[in-house]
Amino acid sequence: MTTNHLLGIDIGGTKSAVILATKDGTIRARMQVATQPQTRNPKAVLTELANLARALLEEEEVPLNDLAGLSVVSGGPLDLQHGLICSPPNLPGWDAVPVVAFFRERFPLPLVVLENDANAGALAEWLFGAGRDTSNLIYLTMGTGIGGGLILEGRLYRGTSGFAGEVGHQTILPDGPLCACGNRGCLEALASGPAIARLAQDSLMYGRHKRVLALAGGKPANITAEHVVTAAKEGDEFARNLLAEVGTYLGIGIANLLQVLNPQRVILGTLAVYAGDLLLEPVRKTVQARTWPGIYDACSIVPAALGPLVQDMAAIAPLLVHLRKENS
Amino acid sequence: MTTNHLLGIDIGGTKSAVILATKDGTIRARMQVATQPQTRNPKAVLTELANLARALLEEEEVPLNDLAGLSVVSGGPLDLQHGLICSPPNLPGWDAVPVVAFFRERFPLPLVVLENDANAGALAEWLFGAGRDTSNLIYLTMGTGIGGGLILEGRLYRGTSGFAGEVGHQTILPDGPLCACGNRGCLEALASGPAIARLAQDSLMYGRHKRVLALAGGKPANITAEHVVTAAKEGDEFARNLLAEVGTYLGIGIANLLQVLNPQRVILGTLAVYAGDLLLEPVRKTVQARTWPGIYDACSIVPAALGPLVQDMAAIAPLLVHLRKENS
Repeated sequence: MTTNHLLGIDIGGTKSAVILATKDGTIRARMQVATQPQTRNPKAVLTELANLARALLEEEEVPLNDLAGLSVVSGGPLDLQHGLICSPPNLPGWDAVPVVAFFRERFPLPLVVLENDANAGALAEWLFGAGRDTSNLIYLTMGTGIGGGLILEGRLYRGTSGFAGEVGHQTILPDGPLCACGNRGCLEALASGPAIARLAQDSLMYGRHKRVLALAGGKPANITAEHVVTAAKEGDEFARNLLAEVGTYLGIGIANLLQVLNPQRVILGTLAVYAGDLLLEPVRKTVQARTWPGIYDACSIVPAALGPLVQDMAAIAPLLVHLRKENS
Repeated sequence: MTTNHLLGIDIGGTKSAVILATKDGTIRARMQVATQPQTRNPKAVLTELANLARALLEEEEVPLNDLAGLSVVSGGPLDLQHGLICSPPNLPGWDAVPVVAFFRERFPLPLVVLENDANAGALAEWLFGAGRDTSNLIYLTMGTGIGGGLILEGRLYRGTSGFAGEVGHQTILPDGPLCACGNRGCLEALASGPAIARLAQDSLMYGRHKRVLALAGGKPANITAEHVVTAAKEGDEFARNLLAEVGTYLGIGIANLLQVLNPQRVILGTLAVYAGDLLLEPVRKTVQARTWPGIYDACSIVPAALGPLVQDMAAIAPLLVHLRKENS
């Protein structure tokens, strides 16, 4: 029997979504809820998502036996072997939650898979976005943290214990600022959204940079990386210099990845999509200076192409990859 | 028809060798010559190696049709697609030398392969040495330069244009010493044999560290990394501290590799084998401090196991991998 549809469950710290797509990767419908992990236990959240999924299928008139499978995407760490979500920082209280078993019980489908959000994002950009024509790519998310996913020789590379791709936790400055992970000078401590905001806030002590402050409503604590990018787009020199500094750190991290993995594409998501060349040009300049021509020339460093669609596509991408593997 | 033997050609800057081995990886015989690339052109060297190979086969009474294939191993860069050696720093004048065509013409065998020495070393340690039970390993050579080879998911990973594994040219200190490659603060500029020797020589300006100097016959310019390791083994405090400093740099580079690739084994060759825990303990300490428990615990950091045999085994390893692939 042939099946035509896929169900994706995207579990985030703020909001979660259920996505119904066709097997060619077209999103047909979606529903979204506030996750509220602080006030609800995992079972309550998962039960709501399962109900939402049933409602979505009913509304779209897709019977269960027309589904090829279901994928669950969430922040890591995950235990893929046992299908568990294991205490991700954005889901407090989600300790060893058996999501695969939960959904498998409620949706008796041939395939129920689990994937972390950075890997799923890499798969989505590889299948549908800026990495479509490559077999070696590195995807970097640039939000609250800097995560990453590696596609090597046309396959998602997970590493020995499933932790590969932690590109945000390379040491860039051995004596640099403390990272949330406990190490000093991680790329994430120098170039993530909160790191950019902190850089801007710290500089305000010197009494300059009024534009960034104005965008934040005059409150230094409210400054975000987005305010910095917006000011830079308006031509604000302080904000542009700050992005150039961040781009240099990011460039060192990406140069190291190039020297080791010689990828064909590096795809930067989230903030880099909004900032564009204001961030990517300093990145490319640093990478070119710190890599070899045969390595630099083989690679393009580009913003993610899926934009706001990336999360929905990421929710179904792990399933699509499974299905393609089965059919090949 | 079954064949029982393999021929390996190892082309080095100082010496080159021809190796005859059986298909189970046992070295049966070898012959060695001085390469002398300064005074001989590539054709003269290759012709001597071909003659040597013929002599070896004759001496061992192995007919040509008992050979499964021939592999050539040399320092990179190589053009694997066209079978060329392309101007390696240790072989001046070897510009686009068609080694595969040269040997294929003289030895009409079903298989003639070319591989760079770091990748071949990684394959040798994977097949016969410290990486036998793993499918994700990183091999680091620690000699004049710091090279590397990656085995990922049970396969040699070459990257998009064949340059993957340049682990010695990750930036460790963004404003660090100039590297021979042109970049600043590369791991190779901080922890290779010459870098260690230079660190020791520079420190002599302060008038201490007599043991290292004595081992070098009283001449600072003659100090090598081996002298530093020997002094450290004798208990010399200066030499031990110097290896600890080098181990810290090396540890940062290896920590970055772990965070990105989550390997099961990191194997350090050459100098690390001689230095042992005097170098490896500071490496492990730094790596543990800069990686995540789930990543650190999955990996052991060990010296290469093949010792002086590694080069001969490396000469035949690429061929063995090809044959195994064909038979699987």
